[in-house]
Order: sequence, then C-alpha cells, then structure tokens
Amino acid sequence: MTHEKPIRFGILGCAHIAIKLCKAITTAPNATLHAIGSRSLEKAAAFMVEHGLPEAVRVYGSYEDVVNDDEVDAIYIPLPTGLHVTWAVNAAERGKHVLLEKPVAMNVTELDRILEACEAHGVQFMDGTMWVHHPRTSKMKEALSDQQRFGQLKWIHTCLTYNPGPEFMKHSIRMKPELDGLGALGDVGWYCIRAILWAMDYELPKSVLAFPGAILNEAGVIISCGSSLHWEDGKSATFHCSFLTYITFDITALGTKGCLRLNDFTLPYDENLGFGTFHESSELDYGKIEQGRWCPKANEHVVETEFSQDVWMVKEFASLVQKVKYLEVKPEKEWSVMSRKTQLVLDAVKDSIERGYKVVEIGS
Amino acid sequence: MTHEKPIRFGILGCAHIAIKLCKAITTAPNATLHAIGSRSLEKAAAFMVEHGLPEAVRVYGSYEDVVNDDEVDAIYIPLPTGLHVTWAVNAAERGKHVLLEKPVAMNVTELDRILEACEAHGVQFMDGTMWVHHPRTSKMKEALSDQQRFGQLKWIHTCLTYNPGPEFMKHSIRMKPELDGLGALGDVGWYCIRAILWAMDYELPKSVLAFPGAILNEAGVIISCGSSLHWEDGKSATFHCSFLTYITFDITALGTKGCLRLNDFTLPYDENLGFGTFHESSELDYGKIEQGRWCPKANEHVVETEFSQDVWMVKEFASLVQKVKYLEVKPEKEWSVMSRKTQLVLDAVKDSIERGYKVVEIGS
Repeated sequence: MTHEKPIRFGILGCAHIAIKLCKAITTAPNATLHAIGSRSLEKAAAFMVEHGLPEAVRVYGSYEDVVNDDEVDAIYIPLPTGLHVTWAVNAAERGKHVLLEKPVAMNVTELDRILEACEAHGVQFMDGTMWVHHPRTSKMKEALSDQQRFGQLKWIHTCLTYNPGPEFMKHSIRMKPELDGLGALGDVGWYCIRAILWAMDYELPKSVLAFPGAILNEAGVIISCGSSLHWEDGKSATFHCSFLTYITFDITALGTKGCLRLNDFTLPYDENLGFGTFHESSELDYGKIEQGRWCPKANEHVVETEFSQDVWMVKEFASLVQKVKYLEVKPEKEWSVMSRKTQLVLDAVKDSIERGYKVVEIGS
Repeated sequence: MTHEKPIRFGILGCAHIAIKLCKAITTAPNATLHAIGSRSLEKAAAFMVEHGLPEAVRVYGSYEDVVNDDEVDAIYIPLPTGLHVTWAVNAAERGKHVLLEKPVAMNVTELDRILEACEAHGVQFMDGTMWVHHPRTSKMKEALSDQQRFGQLKWIHTCLTYNPGPEFMKHSIRMKPELDGLGALGDVGWYCIRAILWAMDYELPKSVLAFPGAILNEAGVIISCGSSLHWEDGKSATFHCSFLTYITFDITALGTKGCLRLNDFTLPYDENLGFGTFHESSELDYGKIEQGRWCPKANEHVVETEFSQDVWMVKEFASLVQKVKYLEVKPEKEWSVMSRKTQLVLDAVKDSIERGYKVVEIGS
C-alpha cells in the first residue's frame, strides 16, 4: 500500500485527550493531521501554538467547517458524549470516516443512529478505546486462549477508578447530565465492560445485576458503581468503576488452570519506554500449599512495541480507511460490533441501577 | 511470664491442616503438643510416625479421650464444620480452651452455642484464621489507617479460589452437606469476608446481595459464589470464591488517596523465608496520565517475621490461655466477636443465594 496517501484527519474540539491524538496522528506513518476546529477560532489557534502543531494544519472556528473541508478524510470526535450523535452522523453524511471517543453514545439507540449513518455512507467506524490496539493485548489474548496453561475462562474482575478531586466533581463535563451524562460508568466503566467482553471473545452476557449502593451526584450522574455479569454457561464477571478513589486499571481473568492479572491494562506503566508487561501464572503444585508454600509468583511477560497504543489505534483505523478509499473495500464492521456490545452492556447496567438493582437481561 | 508453663494442646482428628498445626504448636515457645486423637488408634499412631511427632505425645483412639485428658489445656479442632458445635461445646464444658478451625460453624446459631459454652466455662475461644496473625497484617493495617497516604477507605475486593480437581469434587468432605456443608463459601469465602471486615475495622455491612449465578453441586453445596456488601455510609465491597479456577489469594483495598494490593494475602508467597510483602501506592500526578504516564508502580513493603503465621496464631492463642490459667484474667472476647461477625456475613450471603439473590440485611 505504498502508493496510498496518508489519511487526513480533522479533529472536532480541543479536549485534553485531543492533545494525545494530535501527536498520535502526526506519528502514525499512514495518517496526517489536516485540520482542527473549535467553537472559537482563537481557542483553536491557541491550541495549535500551545501544542506546537505543524503550521500546515488548518484551523477552524467551528466544527462544521472541519466536517465540510473536502480534503479531510476522517474525523476524530473527542466531544462530550451528549454531542456524539449529532457530529458523528454529520461527519458520516459528508462521507467522513469516524473515529469516535468513548463512551460512544448516551445509549444504544443513539449509537445505532451513528452506525446506520456510517453504514449508509460507506464510511469506517471505530471507537477510541486505545488499549485493545497495544501489541500486549494480542499477546494477552494468546495467553488466555492457551488451553494447556490457562484452561477454560470462568471469571473476570475489572476495576477502573481515579479520584479527580472536588473541582472536577463540581465543574467537569463528566459530571453534567447533558454532556458526559454517563459519568464514571461511561468514562471508566466503559473500559471495564470492554475488557470483560474482550476476554469473553465478545460473547454477550445473558444478564447483569448492578451492585446496590451506586453513588450519583445531585444531577443524577453516576460517580461510582459496579455490576455482576452472567453468561448462560456459568461464566461470570464483576466490575467496579468510580471517581472516588485512587487510580486503578485492574483486570484479573481466572481460568481453570491459570490466571492473568494486570494493574495497568488501559495504559501500560511505561508506555513511553516501548513495552508493556503482563502477568500470568499456572502450574501450581497443590501439595505444597499446606506446607507453607503455594504457587510460584506470577510470570512477567514483556511485550515490546514500536509505537504507543494511541499510535497503533490511529494506524489501524487509517489503514482500514485507506482500504475503503483506495481499494474500494467495504468498511470493516467488527469495530462497530465491539462498540455496540459494550454500549448494550453499559445500558443494561445503567438500567439495573435505575430500576433499583434488578436483574436486566441483555437484548441485541 | 517466664514462670508460666507452655500450654498443652490436644488435637481432634488427623486432617491435613493438622500437620501444619502440629508443627506450629511444637515451634511456638509457649505451646506444646500433648495429645492427638483420631476415630481409630491405628490412624492416629500412623499420623504420629508419618509426621515425626515427638514420642511423648499421647495417642488416643477417640476424640472423647483427648477432651477428657486432664493434662490437656486447649483443644485444636480441625474437624469438618458439621462436627464443630458438638466438639467445641464438649471441649468448653470440660474446661478446655478452644482453637477452632474455620469456617467455625454451619451458621451463627451453632456458633452462638459454642461461644456461650466458652463464656459459661471461662475458656478462651479463637478461630483458625492464620493470616491475621502475621506481622505483615498489622503493617498493612497501619498503611490503611494512614489518612495522609491512603485517605478514606471506600471499596474492597477480595478473591479466593483454587481448583482442587475432579477427585476432590467427588469425594472431599468440603463437598458433603453434612460435613463441610458451606463448600467454597466456608472454605475460601470465609477468608474473603474476614479480610473485608478486617479492612473495615470489623464494622458490619448494612446488607449483602449475592451475585446471581452461584454454582452448587448436586447435593446443594456451593462450589462458586460471590457477593457485594454495603455499608450505611456508602462504603462497599465485593468478593468471589470458588473451587473452579486457578489459585488466587487477592485483596484490593481502595482509599481516596491510595491503594493496597496483595495477591497472597492468606499465605505469603515466601512464608518459609521469614518475610511477607505488601504493595501500596499513592501520590499520583494526574497531569501525567494523558501524556502516556500515570502513577508510579506500587511500592513493595517487606515485613520480616521470626515465625510463620501459623506459629504466630498458636503463640497468640496460647498467650491468652496462659493469662486465663495463670493470671486469672478473663478470656479475651475480641476473637469471638471477629468470628461471629464473619459468620453473620457468611450466613447472609448464603441466605441471599437461597432466596434467589435478594438483598439481605445483616442482623446482630
């Protein structure tokens, strides 16, 4: 695909996460940053200067201008969740491919409008979940799939929390119902659910039951919650997400013969050092347990990486867009499917909380 | 207390765990192994030889004989849970102090009979939860109580599992309703609940809700289950326990400012090497997160120990018994209180499962 030109990205808004994506787009070999738009031209121009973006990048004083720029191939949308459906549909209708920050929508009905627009206009869709693109993730999947060492997956627990403090709690868009109205469930619970689905090969659970005692702010936005998830064949999972405690990015996956654990699954500790690690253990000698020893400490596996995970994400997305643009291949739909399943489970957990902690069956 | 003689222990039965306790009693400076009884004299004698116990240890062909031995001060009871109430009450009534293996009873009603007998006869009670006696545990408590680094405790997750295999599932006493009828909930869930209560300063939760999808064997014994636990002030916890997966001894405690994690909390990885470690982290620079770095890796704290945790348990128990015996001090009741609270929560989780996953309020 050496004859194919890099995919030209336009970015809507100057969200904090956009800084990271600007760098990722500039770094990815098959992508280039073409335009950035904010609600004010001054703000966009200041963002350019502050983050040292190339002068060739076009600066717009509205999102509309970015979407209408004929030279933009793909739009990255890091806007508050409440604005996603409007701008993702808008972009798709103008034939722009859509890289959409998570959580992708307020609910699956909104997401379906986005996905239908992408389908109708033949554009590629992908959500902004970065960790799944790190080479470590596919190595972890190999470990989980190793019947000899890991056995059958039975149970998963994920936990994502951070404590952004009182200013955030008062003023952040993540605390406003009309902006990021899914609160902690959308911001970090999204990762918990996605990781569980990833480990379960994207098999949807049969039902969920949220933990009683979810904590909401005065406007009804979730600050802390969790849920158990249940599969037909007896597999189960739990997760906890919160804006109230110290940072954790934990996953524990338990198989009949082995265990996989990470405390940095959404962002490797040493992302900038060109590797990620994961821990697995198996081959226990049970006879030693009651003599004061049990399993050996977990094995640490080091996975080297040429790029950080955000660059891998942009590269993979741009590569799919190149295929659509230059090879007239249909957009790859697996990314829509993963996003939609994540949203379905997220909706069910929210529903379980709103219905006073009732079991909620997962629809399709 | 140098004038006080070591406490003389009698052991009921030749359970696997008794091997460990024989060594612990022999090692503890204030304890001595006096007698061991089995339902058959041959079995007890074989156990003596197999494990190289001192010839001075008396061997009996019944539990009754051990309890009736006038020179026995304290009885260690590693019998199946279903036999605890009979033998613990029997021992207390004969004025023997009671060190009772966990889970202590089939339910709190049975436990109350045991505790009332101990109270009535002025004997010391303690359950066989070893990890709380390791010096590491009090160091971890200090870390959890450090308001500056850890902040307020908000959430705990514990997970204890192992996969003992198909032979165990068919034949183990832990799979028989009339013997260890609490199954995985009693065998490993006991530790999960105890650890949660320990971290919460033994404040009882307001309610529990078991996770749907608990797995029971044909006889109705729990093989795998879990629950969420809820406190009046918004603190919460979850646990998972199972006989179906690879071994885990995990605890994660989350505070507003810090995190404490262990994957070996019930038995340190290197128990025989004279130390235990624990991991805590705090002091995060949030500004670095979105630039591809987040908190530093957890700090590992090494806690040296003169004895293994089973010896510490025996030593602490024997020391309390010495006070009762030689200083005419009343038995220390905090150990009964901890056991009873653990059993109360365990009963509530079992109740929640049996009632089809309803919220169960915790009584007193």
